[in-house]
Amino acid sequence: MENFTFCNPTQIEFGKDKEKNIGKYISQNGVKKVLLVYGSKRVIEDGLFDVVIKSLKENGVDFIAFGGVVSNPILGTIQNAIKIAKDEQVDGILSLGGGSVLDSSKAIAVGTLYDVDVWDFFLGKEQIKKALPIFDIITLAATGSEMNGYAVVTNEKTKQKFSIWSPLVYPKVSVINPELQKSVSKEYLVYSATDVIAHTIEGYFTAKVQPKYMSRQVENIIKTVIETTEILIENPDDYSARGEFAWAATNALNGTTTVGTAGFSFPNHLIEHSLSALYNVPHGAGLSVVIPAWAKWYYKQNEAQFIRFAKEIFEKSTALEGIEALESWFNKIGTPTRLNQFGLDKSNISDIIENLSYQNDIEKDDLEKILSNAL
Amino acid sequence: MENFTFCNPTQIEFGKDKEKNIGKYISQNGVKKVLLVYGSKRVIEDGLFDVVIKSLKENGVDFIAFGGVVSNPILGTIQNAIKIAKDEQVDGILSLGGGSVLDSSKAIAVGTLYDVDVWDFFLGKEQIKKALPIFDIITLAATGSEMNGYAVVTNEKTKQKFSIWSPLVYPKVSVINPELQKSVSKEYLVYSATDVIAHTIEGYFTAKVQPKYMSRQVENIIKTVIETTEILIENPDDYSARGEFAWAATNALNGTTTVGTAGFSFPNHLIEHSLSALYNVPHGAGLSVVIPAWAKWYYKQNEAQFIRFAKEIFEKSTALEGIEALESWFNKIGTPTRLNQFGLDKSNISDIIENLSYQNDIEKDDLEKILSNAL
Repeated sequence: MENFTFCNPTQIEFGKDKEKNIGKYISQNGVKKVLLVYGSKRVIEDGLFDVVIKSLKENGVDFIAFGGVVSNPILGTIQNAIKIAKDEQVDGILSLGGGSVLDSSKAIAVGTLYDVDVWDFFLGKEQIKKALPIFDIITLAATGSEMNGYAVVTNEKTKQKFSIWSPLVYPKVSVINPELQKSVSKEYLVYSATDVIAHTIEGYFTAKVQPKYMSRQVENIIKTVIETTEILIENPDDYSARGEFAWAATNALNGTTTVGTAGFSFPNHLIEHSLSALYNVPHGAGLSVVIPAWAKWYYKQNEAQFIRFAKEIFEKSTALEGIEALESWFNKIGTPTRLNQFGLDKSNISDIIENLSYQNDIEKDDLEKILSNAL
Repeated sequence: MENFTFCNPTQIEFGKDKEKNIGKYISQNGVKKVLLVYGSKRVIEDGLFDVVIKSLKENGVDFIAFGGVVSNPILGTIQNAIKIAKDEQVDGILSLGGGSVLDSSKAIAVGTLYDVDVWDFFLGKEQIKKALPIFDIITLAATGSEMNGYAVVTNEKTKQKFSIWSPLVYPKVSVINPELQKSVSKEYLVYSATDVIAHTIEGYFTAKVQPKYMSRQVENIIKTVIETTEILIENPDDYSARGEFAWAATNALNGTTTVGTAGFSFPNHLIEHSLSALYNVPHGAGLSVVIPAWAKWYYKQNEAQFIRFAKEIFEKSTALEGIEALESWFNKIGTPTRLNQFGLDKSNISDIIENLSYQNDIEKDDLEKILSNAL
């Protein structure tokens, strides 16, 4: 066990009808006026928007709505929102949607309190020292953003998909009602499943110190995702499976799977971020392409852990069999595993490599090998 | 998954030398003067006390020391401490020791801010609406008190061992340095192992709704405790095992194993609390006597979960084999499994039952059956 600091102060309100209390949660935190950030009109059409407005009004919380956040959220939208948040002098942000809306909300919560361009925080030029309090109702279980301090945003001009992290952007209160997540399409369900698995796999395979306790925690999340995804493909209304899927997603990136580990990295996410920044592929779909390709290149650097994975998750005995079983499972649930499923081929590899984040520490030659595994 | 609220704001500072920063953690929270609560002179003799004083002084935190807290901490000591804390006008409590010292500190943190007798909170006559901030350096991994809002105290006059819970007594910062825990005797190591297992087993076996995700979380903790206890009996200096044991202990009662479950109870703890209140047996030792006895009486009410336990933990196939395997493991590590190991026999059973907490919901006849299983 390596030394660590762990503190996750987010209050989770999990379960049926919890969204009806959102105004109470916000007013309890002393917030008077929120920027209500959302994405598509779906939240209006399905009635969630009205439920939220009613609760805000009942609790004396004023609001100004800001819609139109897209998947792989872009900087321009956030900059527009920050302008409005400043003009309207909101003292909190309420996110209504999935991880893209919430990540945008986090960036808005920071940017509203500064005069510099919010992208400077993503570039590491500025440090986050303050942020408005953030509240959310999460309508897609995937990113884990509802219980962590990360936000990932794409700069649509530079094609960079970068992230920030700060203890100040942990949501104050996150509402997770699995019922609100059942309208998610089958496509986005399986992309989400991949994303959750990816969040845990990164540390599991790359950490130089990996306590067994943490390995089992990760395996629990992966087993839960596999079991519940299969149930939900058959029956999207299975509340119990939806609930366990959602809670596994939250736990996959709330810090509990990596405490005490050391020296881990996010190679699959870094490679995928380049892919989705360039070609706007869904994040989870990009990950299911990258993971098996990366694993086939990487596994010998930590073979014991890959064998452990193969045995625990798929009852296989070798590292490669485990990776292949994961790839087969991705195929089975219907998330892509090859670049050609995005209409990409060998000719795109150099662009993907060129666009890779500055934080990347894999050599160009190796990136080419990895991406070639995905052809 | 049942509806739940989860919020655990305790900051964990885990690892080597973290105790050297305790003054910084306290001053960062705006606290100027602490009551420094400890138990035996061991913390003075082994130098920890001096390390703490140095850090307090360096960070401008004043203190007044209060020693002499015993295992199964008693009300009288706490009442004395509250008087001193009031006289000295401390604005925080620093606990230096194991769960008994920390639980006492929590009661002191509440009592110092009230004029009524602190026992009224344990009796449910008064509600906790304020408490001084609590900091701790935990020197024994067992109770999980370092990351929760529970405190258990014995009223030595009435022989009642009762508990409080409040979000206000979650420690602000808990220091867990596994190195500070290696001087724990083998005896207390195995009692602690039992206590940790007990914390998870209660919900695991009694919950009416038990998501699989939560079952696996519990099994992870139990597997970790079994593996690391065996290593530590052989080699108390194994830092890695000590660290995983400590972190499993913290996680066993920080709320993460019971979220989404419903209708669970703490029958083993309630029965044991009567046992240790009457005969002052170590809590963990009492639990290893009660658990197999209770399980043999109870298992048919939730046989599927007992079979799961048998398979997952001991690779056995029936509920009873699983219970017997657990009992054998208790015997193997050297924690008691029969009342006669405390010098008690059939004649004591009625006294134990008589003394049982008001919260108990098992019939007298059944309690007699359970305790008879422990003869």
